[in-house]
Amino acid sequence: MRNFKVGNFKLESATELSKINIAYTIYGDFAPSKKIVWVCHALTANSEVEDWWKGLFGKNDLFNSDKFTIICANILGSCYGTSFEIEEKLPLISIRDMVEMHQRLADFLEISKIDYLIGGSLGGMQALEWSVINPDFVKNLFLIATNAKHSAWGIAFNEAQRMALKSGKNGIETARAIALLSYRNYETFEKTQEDSEEKLENFRAATYQNYQGEKLKKRFTSESYWMLSKSMDTQNLGRNRISIENALSKITAKTLVIGIESDILFPISEQQFISKHIQNSQFKVLKSLYGHDGFLLETKQITENLKKYFEELNS
Amino acid sequence: MRNFKVGNFKLESATELSKINIAYTIYGDFAPSKKIVWVCHALTANSEVEDWWKGLFGKNDLFNSDKFTIICANILGSCYGTSFEIEEKLPLISIRDMVEMHQRLADFLEISKIDYLIGGSLGGMQALEWSVINPDFVKNLFLIATNAKHSAWGIAFNEAQRMALKSGKNGIETARAIALLSYRNYETFEKTQEDSEEKLENFRAATYQNYQGEKLKKRFTSESYWMLSKSMDTQNLGRNRISIENALSKITAKTLVIGIESDILFPISEQQFISKHIQNSQFKVLKSLYGHDGFLLETKQITENLKKYFEELNS
Repeated sequence: MRNFKVGNFKLESATELSKINIAYTIYGDFAPSKKIVWVCHALTANSEVEDWWKGLFGKNDLFNSDKFTIICANILGSCYGTSFEIEEKLPLISIRDMVEMHQRLADFLEISKIDYLIGGSLGGMQALEWSVINPDFVKNLFLIATNAKHSAWGIAFNEAQRMALKSGKNGIETARAIALLSYRNYETFEKTQEDSEEKLENFRAATYQNYQGEKLKKRFTSESYWMLSKSMDTQNLGRNRISIENALSKITAKTLVIGIESDILFPISEQQFISKHIQNSQFKVLKSLYGHDGFLLETKQITENLKKYFEELNS
Repeated sequence: MRNFKVGNFKLESATELSKINIAYTIYGDFAPSKKIVWVCHALTANSEVEDWWKGLFGKNDLFNSDKFTIICANILGSCYGTSFEIEEKLPLISIRDMVEMHQRLADFLEISKIDYLIGGSLGGMQALEWSVINPDFVKNLFLIATNAKHSAWGIAFNEAQRMALKSGKNGIETARAIALLSYRNYETFEKTQEDSEEKLENFRAATYQNYQGEKLKKRFTSESYWMLSKSMDTQNLGRNRISIENALSKITAKTLVIGIESDILFPISEQQFISKHIQNSQFKVLKSLYGHDGFLLETKQITENLKKYFEELNS
């Protein structure tokens, strides 16, 4: 992991951040023959994409550092190396602010274009924004399980989580348990957390919720969870751009949009909409038992779709 | 509202409850010509069914006290008049325990049969149990948006709510906000809580979640919410009865099972399953924007289905 000092930056919400440090990871060298892959990570991930997106990023995977230069920056608000001085209250960071940090880092690295920009969920939101803000900079865009405007449903899920965080005690555990409901669905729990024995309490699904909550508590902070949850809510590609459709029409990158059929948090209608309004885009649907979490787990299906995309690109 | 003193009762979980009082409401007299309608209420409702199930119960509604004797008892664990002495910790009350209280009240009222037993959600769970425990007692059974065994998904939702309650501060508000996500769905929030103006925070969906939380806090207790949430988890019609299918086959009541297409908490597959295994049952599906909450709101569609049922019964 490397560090990039940004110094000061005025957020879209008008708050001035100071002493900003952006943590980032580069896999592979900058050999001229290598295409650049930039990964935008989601809510609780970090810059070490080979750790959390195994099966898609790694020595034996489609995106390996022998063939590609792979870059991922820890997003503004996250607690995996990226930091800034917190004044009185937690600042409101928009997706556009995150992308501004990415762009500054790219400029610092003297990157003139991104060959492949990829992101799922909150990562997809950043990838979309970047492709609107700087269309010429992004050559190919891969979006998975994301949206152009965060839904009222998604905001309601996030608010329930923030209500839990506000309680102070065990807030992040509860927030994670709530989030998990949106990342999975009825079938996921039915197939993986069903009890076979007869009992009156201590059901597997309940134990699992606590387990997942405690697991996140060990590796994440309530402050970052709060800030990134608010960031997700801000996602509106159409803000100050006439309309969402108009913003999407500015994207010139060749685009592949992937949705997951069982995703209840980012239903496929949202990705269909995105794909429909980007000039040069195709839309694919994955089947998964895991709902929204499929964007991290269905790496085999994602790889197949990307391979097909590359074949078409080279033919 | 009237009171029925039960005294002591040993719960299925083996805890002995003492000083039990069951609050109940009767609409209409016991004229011999009148058919008896018994209503089992859901999580945060009470015995005053004309207050919370308007459009189905009331002077100008299908179930009116001129034609029917309507009875509803506040369930064991609820805080609307029903009470008992709480010792060290909150007792674990099963759906079967609730039904045992209903039966004792029915015996006290010298009711020899229930002509129409109706319940939605947690109320449907009780109605189902009662029809298995005492099949001859229930002549017609109306079940809406309920299940024979609570799902791993439902338990996971309830556990997230209990994690919120455990935090102590503002627990019940958060629990309600979580529950609301399961009572509605993506479309409900999209159609009713979407923001038209461009902003970075204070979205309608977030405000709505807090509003609903505060509203429940004013009228419900954390202790009752905890107990009833645990009760819901216990629902397993097959417990000590070989199988769920075997239990359902014991029901002799003529049955109408209603599901709501957009219900994500009690998906219609659960009601289809119930109907399939009851000897004399039919299954209907309602369309609703409101998901699970449709059982309270779609009284017009429920009335139409019941009217049709009555016509067939009398033809």
